[in-house]
Amino acid sequence: MDAVIAAARAFLGDRLSTAQAIREQHSRGEDQTAPTLPDAVAYVETTEEVSRILALCNQHGVPLVAFGAGTSLEGHVNPVRRGISLDLSRMTSILEVNAEDMDCLIEPGVTRQQLNDYLRDQGMFFPVDPGSVCTIGGMCATRASGTNAVRYGTIRENVLGLEVVLADGRVIQTGGRSRKAANGYDLTRLFIGSEGTLGIITRVRLRLHGIPEAQSAAVCQFPDLAAAVNTTIVTMQSGIPVARIELLDADQMRACIRYSKLEGYRATPTLFLEFHGTEAGVREQAEAVEAIALDHGGEGFAWATDAEARSRLWKARHDAYWAAVNLIPGHRGITTDVCVPISRLAEAIVGAKADADALGQTTCIVGHVGDGNFHQVILFDPNDPAALERAWELDRKIVARGLALGGTCSGEHGVGLGKREFLEQEHGAEALALMRTIKSGFDPKGILNPGKIFRN
Amino acid sequence: MDAVIAAARAFLGDRLSTAQAIREQHSRGEDQTAPTLPDAVAYVETTEEVSRILALCNQHGVPLVAFGAGTSLEGHVNPVRRGISLDLSRMTSILEVNAEDMDCLIEPGVTRQQLNDYLRDQGMFFPVDPGSVCTIGGMCATRASGTNAVRYGTIRENVLGLEVVLADGRVIQTGGRSRKAANGYDLTRLFIGSEGTLGIITRVRLRLHGIPEAQSAAVCQFPDLAAAVNTTIVTMQSGIPVARIELLDADQMRACIRYSKLEGYRATPTLFLEFHGTEAGVREQAEAVEAIALDHGGEGFAWATDAEARSRLWKARHDAYWAAVNLIPGHRGITTDVCVPISRLAEAIVGAKADADALGQTTCIVGHVGDGNFHQVILFDPNDPAALERAWELDRKIVARGLALGGTCSGEHGVGLGKREFLEQEHGAEALALMRTIKSGFDPKGILNPGKIFRN
Repeated sequence: MDAVIAAARAFLGDRLSTAQAIREQHSRGEDQTAPTLPDAVAYVETTEEVSRILALCNQHGVPLVAFGAGTSLEGHVNPVRRGISLDLSRMTSILEVNAEDMDCLIEPGVTRQQLNDYLRDQGMFFPVDPGSVCTIGGMCATRASGTNAVRYGTIRENVLGLEVVLADGRVIQTGGRSRKAANGYDLTRLFIGSEGTLGIITRVRLRLHGIPEAQSAAVCQFPDLAAAVNTTIVTMQSGIPVARIELLDADQMRACIRYSKLEGYRATPTLFLEFHGTEAGVREQAEAVEAIALDHGGEGFAWATDAEARSRLWKARHDAYWAAVNLIPGHRGITTDVCVPISRLAEAIVGAKADADALGQTTCIVGHVGDGNFHQVILFDPNDPAALERAWELDRKIVARGLALGGTCSGEHGVGLGKREFLEQEHGAEALALMRTIKSGFDPKGILNPGKIFRN
Repeated sequence: MDAVIAAARAFLGDRLSTAQAIREQHSRGEDQTAPTLPDAVAYVETTEEVSRILALCNQHGVPLVAFGAGTSLEGHVNPVRRGISLDLSRMTSILEVNAEDMDCLIEPGVTRQQLNDYLRDQGMFFPVDPGSVCTIGGMCATRASGTNAVRYGTIRENVLGLEVVLADGRVIQTGGRSRKAANGYDLTRLFIGSEGTLGIITRVRLRLHGIPEAQSAAVCQFPDLAAAVNTTIVTMQSGIPVARIELLDADQMRACIRYSKLEGYRATPTLFLEFHGTEAGVREQAEAVEAIALDHGGEGFAWATDAEARSRLWKARHDAYWAAVNLIPGHRGITTDVCVPISRLAEAIVGAKADADALGQTTCIVGHVGDGNFHQVILFDPNDPAALERAWELDRKIVARGLALGGTCSGEHGVGLGKREFLEQEHGAEALALMRTIKSGFDPKGILNPGKIFRN
């Protein structure tokens, strides 16, 4: 370790830090894992620096964990075996924007907000929107998605190619600029969702989208949870290309009304909707969804027509996690990430809420329900030693129900530390063994984010 | 080899054939590679049979090549190192259709035509449409796409999960039924496009789509090639969600008019278009594209409004390859598969046609131009020993131009034997080495379709 620190300091100077405060900032994400301090934090600025550090770590068998904005909810950035925390948040260049092909090339520390601010004047946007202020490199590493995925796909469908530094420092390019290719193994998709265990992403080529001619947002409130979920199911089954369809349950609405000062809404199950298209298309979509909602007892749409009202609405949605954990002063939250086939969504959500209620556990549900994905924030008192364990017990129960319904333990947050225990059940022992085969081929010394995805 | 044949015959009976005629049928696809006869052909009917044969082949180091409909254009099914040709074309069961989640589970020998005939009454369809009567297992293995990919994505975006038999006979399940997941490495995407070199696909779970409320098709003819291509470019850049936008150059139109008895059209560069959506949406899209076409000198749309006229049009499009090779009696064709960023498409196509014309080589261009992908069928006289070599020379020139424009050697046909020589230039030596790392981890004895993708 000392040799790596000395050698890295030689070319990074004071961008290689062993200061206690810096190490503490890199000891975990927004998760509830027990923090681990890395031995050092390396603030890299170029691919070459990443390559040199990886070569060093590989030579000396020192673990290395990539760090972006630190917003992981599953322990990805916790350096459980110490070593180097590789901070890529200063690699924020937007290197190319090709308007005529609607693609761009960026460094991994660029956030979606930064990119969208940059693109706005050119009539384009990058749709993948996990809500938090996260880096796009981190989104690639965790296979993130968010509110727009129901219409525009997840990060997986919006990455054309990557530059990746391998464990031994070699640099490769994956993918390309054409919209499709049948030219060998899909390395791009293999690195997306690999959570820093196969290589370090140093550049990303993204697909962009034209800002739609018309956008409108609406809020629809329902008498009960099942009515809101069933409205979603029928909307999706009707093939209506909603841009966003987000569920907030009564507790989550209560939290958001208080935290985000949302006025004019009641604390009942609610759908936040957005429609993109031509003027006529947006109207057509909205009318179709409103009719479905009315059929299910929905109260009709409250429109957020101007850009400011829309932005306030989505800001409240994006702050839902913070609203939830602030519902009970001093409490913290863990959050589930179950995703099920759309037809099973009512069972999954209504059942999960009933499980929580039966245990007297306060939870807030917020969901990308068009994808069958929902998050249940389980609140717990950090001063009660048993409370976190009870929260995890409920989490396991919710995941077990999701798996039994044909779903997955993680729709978008990734495996990290928190979801490792479910992978064997979800994939089977042989498929998991095959993932380990890939891991050991790519990273024979096991230096890249050890302890994540796999339990061992 | 004898041991494998004897052991396989014990459980396959006469479904293990060493008959000369059967072996000849499995000696290559629709490509122009020199045929190689496998030692035996195994007509498998179950995953368990596939597993037993792979275990046998792996134990004895015998090569094995999967065979579906035999429509490969790149030599994928040519058993260049002999061994077993594993014929999956009898595995044609449609095991599940879930209308409420729009997914289905099928065996790999199901063709898209079979599946769409089965689905029609349920208001759903499977969009990926490479034209030929190919199996869906083969489409997965080669990362196929086709005419609808511009709207619905390639096979990559339409597969939820796979069952795969690994080289040593182990059976794994990949993916799942939820629309998205962040639950470990993306094994599904790794097998898609792996061309039978990493495992044998025995089941496929597909995403389905609702048959759109309205569909219309149109034909638009242009004074020259650039006008037709530029119409495509502007259409795509405008974000109009065309369902199909297919280019046929003057020679290809000449061929199709003759072969498919297409009446009322002239042999000039032509776009075949299709629009899907609501009645209003389809009208809106068509009006927008027609205006762009008129701007570029297009002659306005000839509509194919009823289902029969539409089907005749797309039948002609799908027969384009056969129309091309029949343009000169006794000739055969090889076909390029370049795909470039949409902004470079005019340079790629107009340049490729000029290259052919300068060499006095007859070629027909047909393209999925909305994706930046086109096929140039290069005709050659099989009785002239130098003619095939000249055709390959032109092919290399067209690919080199595509790569220089930021494109790929293969948009959808795959690598097989024919495109191996371009991969190092396209991916770089290190990325290609990483693909080999995967290959050797998955198939340490090298029994799975040896000689494909990689030269060695």
